[in-house]
Amino acid sequence: MKKANKKVNAAIIIIGNEILSGRTQDVNVVFLSKWLNELGVKVEEVRVIPDIENLIVKTINEVRGKFKYVFTTGGIGPTHDDITSQSIAKAFKVSYGYNEEAYEILKKYYGENKFSEGRKKMAMMPDTSSLIYNPSSGAPGFIVKNVYCLPGVPSILRSMMFGLKNKISGGKKILSKTISLITVESEIAKELENIQNKFKNIEIGSYPFFRLGKIGVSIVLRSPNKKKIDDCSKKIISFVKKRKIKIIERE
Amino acid sequence: MKKANKKVNAAIIIIGNEILSGRTQDVNVVFLSKWLNELGVKVEEVRVIPDIENLIVKTINEVRGKFKYVFTTGGIGPTHDDITSQSIAKAFKVSYGYNEEAYEILKKYYGENKFSEGRKKMAMMPDTSSLIYNPSSGAPGFIVKNVYCLPGVPSILRSMMFGLKNKISGGKKILSKTISLITVESEIAKELENIQNKFKNIEIGSYPFFRLGKIGVSIVLRSPNKKKIDDCSKKIISFVKKRKIKIIERE
Repeated sequence: MKKANKKVNAAIIIIGNEILSGRTQDVNVVFLSKWLNELGVKVEEVRVIPDIENLIVKTINEVRGKFKYVFTTGGIGPTHDDITSQSIAKAFKVSYGYNEEAYEILKKYYGENKFSEGRKKMAMMPDTSSLIYNPSSGAPGFIVKNVYCLPGVPSILRSMMFGLKNKISGGKKILSKTISLITVESEIAKELENIQNKFKNIEIGSYPFFRLGKIGVSIVLRSPNKKKIDDCSKKIISFVKKRKIKIIERE
Repeated sequence: MKKANKKVNAAIIIIGNEILSGRTQDVNVVFLSKWLNELGVKVEEVRVIPDIENLIVKTINEVRGKFKYVFTTGGIGPTHDDITSQSIAKAFKVSYGYNEEAYEILKKYYGENKFSEGRKKMAMMPDTSSLIYNPSSGAPGFIVKNVYCLPGVPSILRSMMFGLKNKISGGKKILSKTISLITVESEIAKELENIQNKFKNIEIGSYPFFRLGKIGVSIVLRSPNKKKIDDCSKKIISFVKKRKIKIIERE
């Protein structure tokens, strides 16, 4: 994993039994990956793990050294199964307690009379946390070093990303181009492999699809280098036209 | 992870750049988790990793000792970016080549004349593989020891599961009960924690929801023991009624 350290990369850790049990369909990975991609950060690993403290600690300590950024989702609410904050504190071996700023934000949000024990719990964080503000439901997320802790509820998570943008130092934005064809993968496998061998730095993916009653393949080119993507795309279009394969989409 | 070894558990490894980039929304985790759950197998970890051989090898070798079953999805098609089969062979240190049965199936499926190089590649597997038959598109998946390799396309994956049922020795089916309330988590956090402390063997999850303009919380109880779930559920219903919180769903 030495190589990975040099890259502007990220891991996403989804914390939650509800995803593992199949009860809840995760949609945060797609959102976060695209959001990070726009900033030139490539998501290179995702893990979904249960709400079990030692597994959270172990996983965080495993990934935080390997990736420039780690994003967690889930487990920062008020109930007994929300144990992300205390687990992150353990992972970093820092103490866990009230974050003054978060406490004030929440007290103001709920009003002093309705600031119950459960709600107070959401102000408890690892020491040394800096806050990720939450414009939709009060309770902040937090950052400890390169680990960014967000809630699991997609609409709340999304509302919190605006304030994060300037905290991420991305690399070159990863550009992509998609060419969708009416064909099957095995018809184009050989030529595609040859083209991949010529364009080592471009990630060429081939994805079969079935939509609107049609069977096809989407070829996706990804790289931070627009010129190379264009050159590679031309090569693909050229062989595809020669083979009289129908192109239904270029984007 | 010693404890995990005794359990009838599974990990799912999603192999594919398209999931990491956010281009494709994974839906196989929900399907596989529910399918395994029905057989009494609990999914305890999910990882999404890129189409990079050494990462696939490393990940498989890490998880196959920890979990009773490992399911992979993706990377078994005909194109250059499909490298799951060769990587699994490397992970198990077995050779990689044509599987005779798969070769015959595919030759028959495509017809001898259309059995191209790309298609032949789909018959290449780790030695010692046994096949997972594919009633929808010919190309089989394969099993090496406790690792089950499936395709990434959801409709094809689903069509292949029927033949797998009798190969999985599950434990007791994990039952669940959901109680949905019109309230917020912090209103019930304390009572829920007390109940969790009384029912240590029941996994009690609390999940906020926003639907049909209503804000609520779903409490999910999971355990293989129906009696305990019922007892726990009664305790919850009892405090909820006392607190005059509206119940909108019990299932």
